[in-house]
This record gives sequence, structure tokens and C-alpha cells, in this order.
Amino acid sequence: MSFEFERLAADGRARAGILHTPHGDIPTPVFAPVGTQATVKAVPPRDLREIGASLVLSNTYHLYLRPGDELVRDMGGLHHFMAWNGPILTDSGGFQVFSLAQINKIDDQGVTFRSHIDGSKHRFTPEKSMEIQEHLGGDIIMAFDQCPQPTDRAIVEKAVARTNAWAVRSREAHPDDSVQALFGIQQGGIFEDLRAQSSATLTGLGFPGYAIGGLAVGETKAQMYQALDFSVPMLPEDRPRYLMGVGAPDDLVNAALRGVDIFDCVMPTRIARHGAVFTPDGTTNMRNLEHARAETQIDDTCSCYCCQNFSRAYLRHLVKAGELLGHYLLSVHNIRFLIRHMERIRQAIFEGQLQAYADAFLARYLQNP
Amino acid sequence: MSFEFERLAADGRARAGILHTPHGDIPTPVFAPVGTQATVKAVPPRDLREIGASLVLSNTYHLYLRPGDELVRDMGGLHHFMAWNGPILTDSGGFQVFSLAQINKIDDQGVTFRSHIDGSKHRFTPEKSMEIQEHLGGDIIMAFDQCPQPTDRAIVEKAVARTNAWAVRSREAHPDDSVQALFGIQQGGIFEDLRAQSSATLTGLGFPGYAIGGLAVGETKAQMYQALDFSVPMLPEDRPRYLMGVGAPDDLVNAALRGVDIFDCVMPTRIARHGAVFTPDGTTNMRNLEHARAETQIDDTCSCYCCQNFSRAYLRHLVKAGELLGHYLLSVHNIRFLIRHMERIRQAIFEGQLQAYADAFLARYLQNP
Repeated sequence: MSFEFERLAADGRARAGILHTPHGDIPTPVFAPVGTQATVKAVPPRDLREIGASLVLSNTYHLYLRPGDELVRDMGGLHHFMAWNGPILTDSGGFQVFSLAQINKIDDQGVTFRSHIDGSKHRFTPEKSMEIQEHLGGDIIMAFDQCPQPTDRAIVEKAVARTNAWAVRSREAHPDDSVQALFGIQQGGIFEDLRAQSSATLTGLGFPGYAIGGLAVGETKAQMYQALDFSVPMLPEDRPRYLMGVGAPDDLVNAALRGVDIFDCVMPTRIARHGAVFTPDGTTNMRNLEHARAETQIDDTCSCYCCQNFSRAYLRHLVKAGELLGHYLLSVHNIRFLIRHMERIRQAIFEGQLQAYADAFLARYLQNP
Repeated sequence: MSFEFERLAADGRARAGILHTPHGDIPTPVFAPVGTQATVKAVPPRDLREIGASLVLSNTYHLYLRPGDELVRDMGGLHHFMAWNGPILTDSGGFQVFSLAQINKIDDQGVTFRSHIDGSKHRFTPEKSMEIQEHLGGDIIMAFDQCPQPTDRAIVEKAVARTNAWAVRSREAHPDDSVQALFGIQQGGIFEDLRAQSSATLTGLGFPGYAIGGLAVGETKAQMYQALDFSVPMLPEDRPRYLMGVGAPDDLVNAALRGVDIFDCVMPTRIARHGAVFTPDGTTNMRNLEHARAETQIDDTCSCYCCQNFSRAYLRHLVKAGELLGHYLLSVHNIRFLIRHMERIRQAIFEGQLQAYADAFLARYLQNP
């Protein structure tokens, strides 16, 4: 089986494993940096390899609009196009259609929208999303879903019904997981019965992996953790579980404790472009005056190229001068910080010490999250 | 002697050699990429090393204003600050004061100007320029000069007189070349007698190297080449000769033929940020539709990371999508293109074939310069 998920250790609800893919093994729990437009912003793929990335996410909505999924297919698929030979996950386009595009019409068949780039009119359906993702050629592809605001029950109910119907159609349009594995997406907001209803439909369809969608989109962290408490156990033990769009260091460990295996988020590269970095003591912005004459690196325990070579004083200079190298160096550090965090989480699971690791990490990090 | 210049071969007026510095040897003729604000824009220093850079230029005016030369000194000097352990050349600040700042007053003592960043008032003198460059800690530092429009004789005459006086004061302020070598700057525009007058003063001061200033600032290429025909032989045979601000591929080979050893220019990184790249057949802009489905690299004879991994179609996508990775990849290629060009020029000098190399290179490159 191409996408076998080996569970190697458990620690409470947390699991450590390996997800095998045609482009290599993914040690789980794993954090995937996001390459929205077929590039993790400012970071060359060989640097991603160097800092330990084993999975990269790319966005169906963006690549469909530009440069076009057929062009990516004709250029040999996403792996070859972006020169990343490791595993790739593409999302379904649903989330971006609902958050970025101007929606013209949502109906049970699909969504008609206008491009955020040039206003041109387009339509996504479950079948269209499968076709685009097949053209892109990612290893893991996602069912087309509707991601609602998670705390309004009436809206979430409708989104669950529609997402369930679209999951059936996504599965029918992409029935074979041997080359590209199709993951289903659980919706249901913060409501336990709706999550259960969503899970029942999805698990009946037999996906090789399951995502928890519709979280980290406006609810509080307490609400998210509570939703994970009841949502994760609804998904099959023997399949990888993917919490979409989550990447804050505290959320990563809190969700790993609750049994999540895969994460992705733009946060490390996005905050880097605003000058902010992760440290064991929380985030800090390199613009701050305190760094002006700091000869120390961002994190003296970090192995990344940035921390091995550059002082905070230099990084502050780059950020204040608007230099492109600053985006690169801070992005490399921030991604490495999250990947190392995941490596430590995984090791702690093997050692049965995840709660202790989480307590120690959060005690320092939450001083200034 | 710290800055010994070994001449290893000659081919007509062209020379191949090695300039020894405390931070390593510079094979000449050499092209130096420009790191204006202590960073070659978008290119990490380890990439500069990989693509064969042996000398990097940084700008006194910019670093004096931000982050401040005293801060750079306190952080261990420019090499440590920017993590480039190879040779560094700093300019005098003169050119930028006259081209970027708002001039308040020029007198024989120096220049009073307002910062282009915040309008604050500052004053540069030859002594101040030496002090700043000593704080920055570059291997090669430049005398403070006035760079005029090169074709107006009355203006050039005054600039030569002032530059000569400032060369004397620069030499007095920095008398010892053992740690940092001070180069004099010849001015004189396109006028042979003024170049001779400038050279007579400079050579009398005994600099370890000489720059040809005041070219590539508005005159035609024919005027520049003609000026080099008579200006270069006025400078001592046994010292390196540096043509400031020149970096177009055709100018590099034409000036090497005329006996120039050192070059610098922002061109490779600046045109990269506008989507343009060097190829053996001239420049091309990656935005062009012709590249939309091109599976080929920019230059199939190039060894750079960009050409080894990425198609023109992908690069066009990055440029059109405004992705930061595009700036990096195109900059890496463009710098590598110029450095390889210099490597071939140097090899051709050893083989006594520089004119043949120049003819072959220019026949292709000038199709679309």
C-alpha cells in the first residue's frame, strides 16, 4: 500500500508514526510549511530539505488561477515544477474560495466565484477540485469541503450536510488512492454531534486519512482544544489525522497531545515577513530596539543557517532596511523552529514524556506567545 | 605585503593575476557583486561562495546612515556582521552623497547633505570617510572623491582638482595599508589631459591600487571605451586597476581587454528584481510570454542552483506572482553569469585568446544586450 500509516508509539492519545508516500516517508507528528504558489515564500527547496521539512503544502485555488493546473501538469507536475521531490499535500481550494475570492453563488453542486487576482469568473465543484489536484500531482489531496464559521450552529449544520455530500462526490471522482491519497475532511465546528455526524459519513467512505477542518478560524483556543477532545477520537485510529491550518507552537503541542498527526500553517513565513520570530521564550519582533546591539543569535539552541551565522543586531538591520535577505533568514529560522518542535514532540512520544515536554515548553513559550 | 598583486599573465593590455588580501585571494580580472546595505540583495553569503564570488562591495554612505558604522564596528566589523568571510571592498560614500542625498553644500573641505532616509543632516570629509571605512573594516577602502558628469569639461576640471586634494587628505588620514588597503580614484571624465593630471597626483601618493572613477555615469559606451584606452595606461602596471560601477557583460570584456582588473555593479541583482536575466544570447525578461511553457532552464551551460533545478516556466510563474524566491533565483543566476564570464575572460588571458573570446561572446550577447 502506497500510503501505509505505521503507528510506532503512543503516549496517551498522542501517536508517533510514519506515513509512507511515493515521494518518501513522513515521520509523524509532522508540521508542513506552506508553499501557496508552488514556493514556500522566500525559501529555496534545498533549504527546506536542510531544515528537515518532510511535507510541503500547496494551494489548489492559487495554482488553478496562476499559472494554471494544466500548465503545472504539462511541466511535469508540482514536484518537478517547484523542484521539491519530497511529499506534497494540496488542499481542495474550498477554504480559499470562501476566504479570498468574491463568491457569486454557492449551491449544492459547487461554488461560483471571481478570482481575487483579476475578477475573472470560475466554478469549483468536487469533481473540478479532484481534476485540478490530479493535474497538480500532489501525494495527498483533499476532498472539496465547505469551511464555515465554527460557532454558528445553523450555518455549521448546513456546511456539514454539504461537505458530506461533496465528500461522496470527491471519493467517486477519485476512487484510487495508489498514486494520490484522498483525505476526507471532518466539519462540524465546535459541536460534538455535528462532528459525529460528519465523521460517520466520512469513515463510511474509507479514506486513507482524515482532516479536522473548520478549526483555527475564529474560535478561541479553549474552544479549539475542547473540539479536538471529542473530534479526534471519532476518526479511525489506524489512519493519519490532519489538523488543517494550525501552526502556532502552543497549538501544535496541544493538538499532538490530543492525537493529531499532521499540521500545516503559513504562520512561520508570514510572521517572518513582518519581522517576527519564534524563540523558546515566545515570539519577538526583530524591529525591537532591544535587538539593536545584540550579538547573540535568535535562539542559541537552534541549528538553522540563520542562527548559526547571524546576530540579532544584523537581522534587525535587515528588517529595518527592508532587505530581502531578512525574509529568507527569518523564514528559515521560523520553519526550523516548528520542525524541531515536532521532532521533540515525536521523541517525547517515544519516551512516554509528551505531557512533561508540553508542560516545560508551554511554561516558557506562553510567557510571550 | 598584505595586498600583493601578482601578475600571472598578460594578453595585449589585459592581465590575469591574484590580489592577495587578509581575507583571501582574489583572482583577477574579477567581478564583485554589490551588497549595498551589508547584504547582496536576496542572496545569502553561502550562495555567494558557491557561485564563485571572491570579493563583495558594500556602501559606506548606506551603512553610515543605517545601522551606523560604529554599530558595525562594535558587532565585530562588516565581515562578521554580514557573515561574509571573503574579501570586502567599501566605497568612499562620495558617489552616493552626490547621487542619492540632498546636497546642502559642497566646499573644498567636504560635503554637507541630508539623508535620503529621514532627511537628517550629515557631513562627509575625506577624514570622515576614512574613519567610517575603518570602522566598517573592509579589506579595500576607497579615497573620498567627487564624481562629476563626465562630459562637461568645466565641471570635470573642478572635480579633478577637488578629488586630488581629497586624495592627499585620504592618504594622510589612512597612511598604513597593512590591514586595509586604500585605493586612489582617478577622475577626469572623458578628457585625456584631465585623466593625466589626476593620475599624476594619485601615483605620486603611492596607493596599493587605483580606481577609474567617473565612467558609466551617462556617457556613451564608445566614449567610455575611448576614455579607458587612454586612462588605464596612466596607472601603474604593477597595481590592480578597478573600474567602478561597471558590470554589463559587454563592458566587462571590453574593459578587461583594456587592462582593468576589478569591477563591481548592482546590475545583476537589480535587473533580477525586475525579472530580467543574462543569457549568452543577451538579456531576456522572464515575464515574457515566450517563457510561459518553456521547460528549459535560463542557460543550459550554467552551473548555478537556479539553472540546475528550475525551468523558465517556473521562473516566469514566480516573477508574475511576485514571489520572493524569484528574486533569489534570478539574482543567483545573474551573479553566476558574470562571475563565469570573468572566469572565462581570465582563462582566455592565460591562453592568449582574449580577443577571440571577446569577439565570440559579443557576437552572441549583443544580439539583445
